[in-house]
Amino acid sequence: MTVLVVGSVALDSVETPFGKADNVLGGSANFFAASASHLTPVQLVGVVGTDYPMHDMQALAKRGVDLAGLEQADGASFRWRGRYRHDLNSAETLETHLGVFSHFRPKIPAQFRDAPFVFLANIDPRLQLEVLEQVRQPRLVACDTMNFWIESRRPELLELLKRVDLITLNDGEARQLTETSNLVKAARWILARGPKHVIIKKGEHGAFMFTEKTVFYAPAYPLEDVFDPTGAGDAFAGGFMGYLARSGDLSEANFRRAVIYGSAMGSFAVEKFSIERLLEIDAKQLASRVGDFRKLVAFEDEL
Amino acid sequence: MTVLVVGSVALDSVETPFGKADNVLGGSANFFAASASHLTPVQLVGVVGTDYPMHDMQALAKRGVDLAGLEQADGASFRWRGRYRHDLNSAETLETHLGVFSHFRPKIPAQFRDAPFVFLANIDPRLQLEVLEQVRQPRLVACDTMNFWIESRRPELLELLKRVDLITLNDGEARQLTETSNLVKAARWILARGPKHVIIKKGEHGAFMFTEKTVFYAPAYPLEDVFDPTGAGDAFAGGFMGYLARSGDLSEANFRRAVIYGSAMGSFAVEKFSIERLLEIDAKQLASRVGDFRKLVAFEDEL
Repeated sequence: MTVLVVGSVALDSVETPFGKADNVLGGSANFFAASASHLTPVQLVGVVGTDYPMHDMQALAKRGVDLAGLEQADGASFRWRGRYRHDLNSAETLETHLGVFSHFRPKIPAQFRDAPFVFLANIDPRLQLEVLEQVRQPRLVACDTMNFWIESRRPELLELLKRVDLITLNDGEARQLTETSNLVKAARWILARGPKHVIIKKGEHGAFMFTEKTVFYAPAYPLEDVFDPTGAGDAFAGGFMGYLARSGDLSEANFRRAVIYGSAMGSFAVEKFSIERLLEIDAKQLASRVGDFRKLVAFEDEL
Repeated sequence: MTVLVVGSVALDSVETPFGKADNVLGGSANFFAASASHLTPVQLVGVVGTDYPMHDMQALAKRGVDLAGLEQADGASFRWRGRYRHDLNSAETLETHLGVFSHFRPKIPAQFRDAPFVFLANIDPRLQLEVLEQVRQPRLVACDTMNFWIESRRPELLELLKRVDLITLNDGEARQLTETSNLVKAARWILARGPKHVIIKKGEHGAFMFTEKTVFYAPAYPLEDVFDPTGAGDAFAGGFMGYLARSGDLSEANFRRAVIYGSAMGSFAVEKFSIERLLEIDAKQLASRVGDFRKLVAFEDEL
């Protein structure tokens, strides 16, 4: 089954202790699509300017990402320039130029409106709500968000929570949204406001998935070389949604497997700049890493 | 089989966002013993002053902790006063009075010298080495350490590494010791210098156990109320060593189970002040929490 993603399509310039990359493909929708397309067909909705390297998007198109919803508008593309220090835990934003993204109003093409799986990547909650007006009865809607919207669009974000099945957010965002330092309590706060699943991403410390009655935890893969953390969260979401969409199975057991696929995709994303590594890997490498996750947490019952 | 612990026996005064406790049992050896004694007989070696509330130690004695190695010396007991802010991640030390602990020279009683399992809790590496001179052919020796010794006793600590089978340390200490930010590389650095197992504790983010060929990861239990983090690491070590000593099985599979028992004990330790919760729990509660750890990370194979 198809997954629809609506989010940013950007040009990133990133500096890490291990190198730098200039004007490479970035943005939540690109990372999500590069990841999810390993598992299921993807429909992408976003906006770029006239300066965007559209030929570079062909790598995604070849992987089964339908770009019919990628609008090219007059003006400059969204550009982000950032730097990671040695600990790689948080990006320092050096420049942000929203360009045409600042006037983005998602228009879902007619042929995308029946998408059974929808991911509302990190954009203005008002636009996320507009997307929901345009799609018909999806089986699962998930959203992401960030500190900026939690602060500036709180009422709209709370409205959105009522209308999504799942939210992914990082630990700092969960604490900010719920004004609660304890993550278990933060998750309960969110679950009480709509979503049936809450995924709290903790970066190098893994991810929790909470439901009303269960907690599942997936570690981050212990990599020796984390090259560039940009996009790990969106690659996680892509692996997660892609896995659910591929099987169409919404059981708890399958949600858990989906979190592991998301974690595997996140671990690949950080091994190179941009979506480079996500484009390189094949089904065998993905299966092998999922197997590594199993070994990482496996312990046998006592005799 | 018996486990011998050599470490500090202190009086703690702790303030957290949830309350305060004054002059309660603390120190690495107490937390370790309260935890390990749920699984196996414990022999404790340490020193206190004439002001120590020896009657409070009876709770440990009743649980099978042999206090024959607890010396009472002329002078004041080791006292620590600390505070945790809302995030509970790091203690702020307000006062430290070493008292008789500053002249501690561990004397292992004759009847303790054949202990098959030895835990050298966080004390001066020179003293940890002195303990090793006094014990006969233990099956497994593990040690802990801290930033202060990494800085001030580096040569002695490196000498100790050659002579222990396992080291537990937290992520910050691992980075400091190895001058490496990546924990996988840090673990390899330590493994190359002696220990066959390295356990890196990440507090609320769980713990890694590294061997030359394997990595195992155990999450921290997602508690709704973390009351006082003091002693969690030593309770972890107690659960871990106690589990190994109980079975005497040094297979990889058993080491993994031991890490889960350690994690379970760490999660109990933080639910109340001092060793209070560790003294309350019973075998059923421990088994139930170990079961919860299994549910927390379990995901089924694909069909």
